[in-house]
This record gives sequence, structure tokens and C-alpha cells, in this order.
Amino acid sequence: MQLEWGDVTHVTKVDPAKPLPADLEVLSGTDLVLVGGSDDVTEENTLEAIDALQATVPDTPVFQEPSSGAHVSSATVERADAVAVPAVFNGDRDHFVGKHVELFTEIGEQPGELLGANLPLVGRLVESKGRDVVAELAANLVGEGYVVQHLESAAADRAGVETAYTPEQVAGAALATETFYGFPIFYIEYSGTYGGPDDVEAAARHLEETRLFYGGGIDSAEAATEILEAGADAIVVGDCFHDDPETFRATIPE
Amino acid sequence: MQLEWGDVTHVTKVDPAKPLPADLEVLSGTDLVLVGGSDDVTEENTLEAIDALQATVPDTPVFQEPSSGAHVSSATVERADAVAVPAVFNGDRDHFVGKHVELFTEIGEQPGELLGANLPLVGRLVESKGRDVVAELAANLVGEGYVVQHLESAAADRAGVETAYTPEQVAGAALATETFYGFPIFYIEYSGTYGGPDDVEAAARHLEETRLFYGGGIDSAEAATEILEAGADAIVVGDCFHDDPETFRATIPE
Repeated sequence: MQLEWGDVTHVTKVDPAKPLPADLEVLSGTDLVLVGGSDDVTEENTLEAIDALQATVPDTPVFQEPSSGAHVSSATVERADAVAVPAVFNGDRDHFVGKHVELFTEIGEQPGELLGANLPLVGRLVESKGRDVVAELAANLVGEGYVVQHLESAAADRAGVETAYTPEQVAGAALATETFYGFPIFYIEYSGTYGGPDDVEAAARHLEETRLFYGGGIDSAEAATEILEAGADAIVVGDCFHDDPETFRATIPE
Repeated sequence: MQLEWGDVTHVTKVDPAKPLPADLEVLSGTDLVLVGGSDDVTEENTLEAIDALQATVPDTPVFQEPSSGAHVSSATVERADAVAVPAVFNGDRDHFVGKHVELFTEIGEQPGELLGANLPLVGRLVESKGRDVVAELAANLVGEGYVVQHLESAAADRAGVETAYTPEQVAGAALATETFYGFPIFYIEYSGTYGGPDDVEAAARHLEETRLFYGGGIDSAEAATEILEAGADAIVVGDCFHDDPETFRATIPE
């Protein structure tokens, strides 16, 4: 999967359980789309969202970011450019390592079967090509080191997050991501509220290879600029994409 | 840190809390030494072991494998070729992510201070060179994806391991190590008992970049050969190094 990381400064998070805006051309200024959400996501609405996006902005990479293995199928893996898998530093054990080992155990054990629910996972390809496709699927997984900082969010509830990190702990998680776990993305998630630049500044000091994403409450050019100037490689904009295309447009750097 | 992984097939685990054998020349056939143990390890006895090893087999790389941050100091980091840090897949949250974030938070927050206890961590270097040395220290940390399979061992007790993995789960953890967490070593630890080739065979199928280490109960050429033929890149031999140099010598491949 070839993605020019240096070019990614604006990321749109599309919730497939929410209606898409009438005019998807608003996406023409974004550099990457993540498709995923916490509530009411299914494989079907994920595929519908991917199809709509690829029909409108075919040159923009689209990553599936599933919150459950049940949202992943042969079709989503084939049609998305990558599958982004969060590992939540301040969540429970399941959401940093437990579910991941389950996922990889399934991939390794039953390449013709599905992850999570009873859907086919690249079944045809795997049966014909065997281990090469398992390797290809594994190569399409992008690890994201996450900290979830808004405790009232659905994301915090799902991942078992009970305590937000201090900026010093965010910096530690960033350093661990860069030097120990080796995930290509470190993601500070304030889901639904604006967290300001402090965590971003703390994390940015330690990141060179790993890209720093910030998401949460970005609804103006000023907020976008503040976060990017604090050292984020990219801002992630979600809610206003669905609710308010004009505001969304204002968050895209010129 | 330049290590020719392809050349490492025999690893010796030296417990610094145990007496070293009278003739350390027995180590001349081993490719890598790990210094660490579960009980009674201190910074002082770690340094004594490293010094004795480097005086006898100066060309053999020596990694510190601390079971606590209190065993790590500026002196151990400077004298060991690397610090190997286990992340235990089937342990508790602390031993896969919790303690690691604490460690990296300390490294990031107080570069002039120590990890864990109140000892200086590369203090002089950090104060004079700043971030470059933090990067250098981080670069000297080698991640090890661990599964601890002998529940009666001290290692299992320390890491909160309550359930051994099936071979399918070992394979899943190996695949996760190779493709998601990116640790350079995957280590199947049967600490104190011989686990046989099944887990090794299951894991070896999924590993290309990551090196596969097996440790536990290797006390003959036959056991060493069985594990290496099952697909391990290296066997790790510990107990008999301290107890029985002749048996130890027999485990070194010719």
C-alpha cells in the first residue's frame, strides 16, 4: 500500500451509519478518508460508504477503521486501500492486545473463513493463493497507536478507557509507538470535543517516522491551524463532515 | 545496534543472581547472551555479569533483559549492547503495554533521571546531548513479543500469565508480532520445562522478518536439534549454563 504520508494533512472520518452529505465533492480537498464509527456500523453500510467515496473522489485513499471484526469481510478488505486497526494505550487489555491476537489467530488459523462474524474473509483469494494472500492481508493492516482522551465518548466506552492520559503520558505513548511498537500512526482522539494543542505538542517532540493524527472538535480553520502548528501531521475531521459541509470545508488547509 | 540475526542460533540466558560457572570459555560457541532473571536481580549483579562476560567473550553481543526498570541504569545501558524488553502477549495489561508506557513516559519526561528506581539513566550523556541521546537509548531497546507457556514458572507469576496459549494462539501472536507490533524477536518461553516443537512449528509459519526464539528445558543436543528443525531461529539455554557446563556445551550446534 503506497501512501505518501508527507502529503496527508487533512483526514476525514466518515461514519457509515450516518447519512452522507448530498455533495461529496466537498471531499476533494481531503487527503485520506477513514471509514468507521462506534454505533450501528455494519459490513453493508461500510461497503456503501466506500463505494460512494470511491465513485466521487477515486484518487483519495480510503481506509476502513473497523470497531469490530464483524465489519470486516473479503469485500471490505478488497475495496479499501487498507484496514486501520487501533491499539488503545489507555484502554483495557482487550483493546491493545487481546482482540488483536484473536484477529491474527483467526487469520492464521482459518484463512478461508472470516474474522469475528460468519462472513468470508478474502476466501476465494486465499483458497487459490494460500499464504501469499494472508501475507497480503496482513500487509494491508495499518496499526494505529491510540489514546482516547474524552471519557464521555462512545470510543472511550467501547475501548474500556477509564482515565485520560496526562500530556507526559501521551508523550510516553508516542515514544513507545515510534520506538517500540512501530505503528505507523499515533492518534490522539478527543472524539466529540476539542482537546487543544497540549497533547499534540507533547507527542510531536518524540515522533519522526510515526505520523501524528489528532481528531476531535475541529470545526474551524483556527482550530485546524492550532493543531497543525502544535506539531500534528494531520487533523482528523468527522462530525461536521456529516452535519455541516461549509464548516467542514473551512477545516481544510489551503 | 548491528546484530547479524542470521548468525544467531544459540542464545545463552545468564541469571545474574546465580553464580557463574568457573570456566566462562564454555560460552565461546554461543551467539548472543541475555542477562536477566526473575528473582534477586539487581543493577549491581547485572553489571558484574556483563563485565565478566565481556572480559571473557568480548565479541559476543550481550543484551540486558530486565524484569524491572530498577535493574536498568546509565551503566547497564552503556555497557550492554541492547536492552531487550519483553511484551507478554498472554500476561496482564501491565506486562504488554502498561509498564512500557510508564518506561517511555519516564524516558521522555526526565531524560536526566532514571527508569523505575532513583538511579541515573544515561544522565551525563542526556544532559550534554539532549534529545539525540534519548533517541539513542530508544534505539537500543529491542522489543520481544513473548508468550510464557509454563504456568508454574516465576516468569508466568511475574507477568500475570494465567493461561497458556494453544498452538493456534501462539501462531496468532507470532503473526501479530511480525505484521502489527513489529517486534524484532518473538520468544516462546517454557521457562524450566521442555515444551516440544508444536508451538515453534505453529509460529514459524508466520515469521519472516521477526526472529523466533525458543527457551525452556533444552538440556541435550537432541532437544536443541528438534527445536531448530521445527523452525526456531535460535534456542535459548539457561539453567544448565549455571548448573552443568558439559550439558550446556552439548546444546551448542556444531
